[in-house]
Amino acid sequence: MSGNEKPIVATMIGDPAGIGSEVVVKSLATGEPYEMSRPVVVGAACAVEQAIEITGTNLRVRTVTDTADVGLEPDVIDVLDSGKLGPNDYQLGVESATCGNVTADWLAELNQLSADGKVDGGIMGPVNTGSLKLANRFDAVVNVEPGSTYLTLFSGPLRVVHLTDHVPLRDVSGLISEELVLSALHTIHESFSGWGVRDPRIAVCGFNPHAYGDEEDRAMKPAVERARADGINASDPIPPDTVFRHCIDGRYDIVLAMFHDQGHIALKTWGFFGNCAMILGLPYIQMSVAHGTAFDIVGQNKASHEMMLSAMKQTASLAGGKGFLPVQASH
Amino acid sequence: MSGNEKPIVATMIGDPAGIGSEVVVKSLATGEPYEMSRPVVVGAACAVEQAIEITGTNLRVRTVTDTADVGLEPDVIDVLDSGKLGPNDYQLGVESATCGNVTADWLAELNQLSADGKVDGGIMGPVNTGSLKLANRFDAVVNVEPGSTYLTLFSGPLRVVHLTDHVPLRDVSGLISEELVLSALHTIHESFSGWGVRDPRIAVCGFNPHAYGDEEDRAMKPAVERARADGINASDPIPPDTVFRHCIDGRYDIVLAMFHDQGHIALKTWGFFGNCAMILGLPYIQMSVAHGTAFDIVGQNKASHEMMLSAMKQTASLAGGKGFLPVQASH
Repeated sequence: MSGNEKPIVATMIGDPAGIGSEVVVKSLATGEPYEMSRPVVVGAACAVEQAIEITGTNLRVRTVTDTADVGLEPDVIDVLDSGKLGPNDYQLGVESATCGNVTADWLAELNQLSADGKVDGGIMGPVNTGSLKLANRFDAVVNVEPGSTYLTLFSGPLRVVHLTDHVPLRDVSGLISEELVLSALHTIHESFSGWGVRDPRIAVCGFNPHAYGDEEDRAMKPAVERARADGINASDPIPPDTVFRHCIDGRYDIVLAMFHDQGHIALKTWGFFGNCAMILGLPYIQMSVAHGTAFDIVGQNKASHEMMLSAMKQTASLAGGKGFLPVQASH
Repeated sequence: MSGNEKPIVATMIGDPAGIGSEVVVKSLATGEPYEMSRPVVVGAACAVEQAIEITGTNLRVRTVTDTADVGLEPDVIDVLDSGKLGPNDYQLGVESATCGNVTADWLAELNQLSADGKVDGGIMGPVNTGSLKLANRFDAVVNVEPGSTYLTLFSGPLRVVHLTDHVPLRDVSGLISEELVLSALHTIHESFSGWGVRDPRIAVCGFNPHAYGDEEDRAMKPAVERARADGINASDPIPPDTVFRHCIDGRYDIVLAMFHDQGHIALKTWGFFGNCAMILGLPYIQMSVAHGTAFDIVGQNKASHEMMLSAMKQTASLAGGKGFLPVQASH
């Protein structure tokens, strides 16, 4: 992608029985994604057409086979449809192995497009755990591997990378090493720099109360020292109960949390503002929305597209090297 | 205290060199504490008189020697002054062994008044760690002892009891036992019931991500089962990242957190709304305010009395068996 072009952002609709297609269509209908990017949808054209009908939006679907000229006309939704799902193969609000299978296939297609450089960023619509399990494809959803990939959550000004994810809390101390912390700091620095965040300010969240303890001394502080020697703008370990407020207040671009609930308690207790999630450390952007398939309201044009639109705009901004979107609401 | 009388609430002014006297005077000047309680101040009359001058409030000081007839006249501040500090013994904004010594003495006097039943509730004004250390009296501030006393924070609808406090996080797993959790549930239930909270709804915060792990299975769930058999309204372990929102939303009266930063991250990231703290498990109410002595703004009538007034009203409500004050602001 050259500097003057808009980034191509691909959105996979998620489980076809869920609200994914609806929120994708409603987001595209605002026109905003077309201003910042060239959007393309991965999934079934029939599901997108059904969503256009449900939402009463005045758009039409064009099926495409590659990304050469996608996303140029705001009244057209370009869909990369690999022909795996027909209109009679699924039912809104009902989980099935068929839906799980196509969801997993589309996710693989999305990742392949990103890996091949055919799109500049990808978004995963809401998937359904039940359908994926019925299809025996639950492992298709990327899991994090400590030292390589990190679950990252964005909620307005509050952004958190998790050093470790779903591990028993008593095991986390043993996982915190100088190398792992240093590796995470490098991944954050390089990813954020590539997205256009200059000299990203990384807050390192302590492990112990008041950031005072063995893990800080033996692993975290030495990692911070080495990171600084490498030109990375990382803080000393900051007390866990104050670091997230510092980020909300704009003093840092991102917090590196040591374990799942440090970040999750902060994000979920503070509030939700167009949350999205990302696996950091992949060679491409893969964003996802924080909500699920919402089978209880699917097909009723009730689903809010706020998170999906936010994910589309954030992905466009980062993939275009323009940094994070300006933060709107806060409290 | 009989059912019709107002509770006697004693407030220790904290370090005389800090903003404690100012916020006490400004809180009392609102008249609100007199509507709900009979207030009395523990400390030096000279410090209170100086604060009246600084804040320009139209109150006068009366030195008393016992609590028999205190707190009846809203334009009078009754002060229990044990004669340990004169007007030339301290300087605003300067820490000293003298200030540390009288702070520790007054705290002991406050606790004794509570223990003797001469007051119905006590509030500790902001103390200064430097002064206490200079006086070698730092241990005068009550520390929690797991299994017996628990640090408890209140912030509007979000209330949290901490099972453990300042211990290395990697040691917490080993401290979580069925007996300790059960003991904490009993302490919460009995304290809250005594304060007028009927059938207190206790949310038990999980230890591991999604409240799924060994500590939940071997200790927390069995403790909840036994607590329920004893008539206590305790939840199953709830995922740490959702339980605090549940409390904010009014689904519970209190959260039992397993360690320091679960509660502190939630409270400090969510926001501050007249926070106060309490050591739960003492045979009497001892509230304290969340702020410090603020030497940088002392003597300038700049200090906000919001937290102190909230502590006075909350203590009056609980000591009077009327439960928690209705929650005002939320978000």
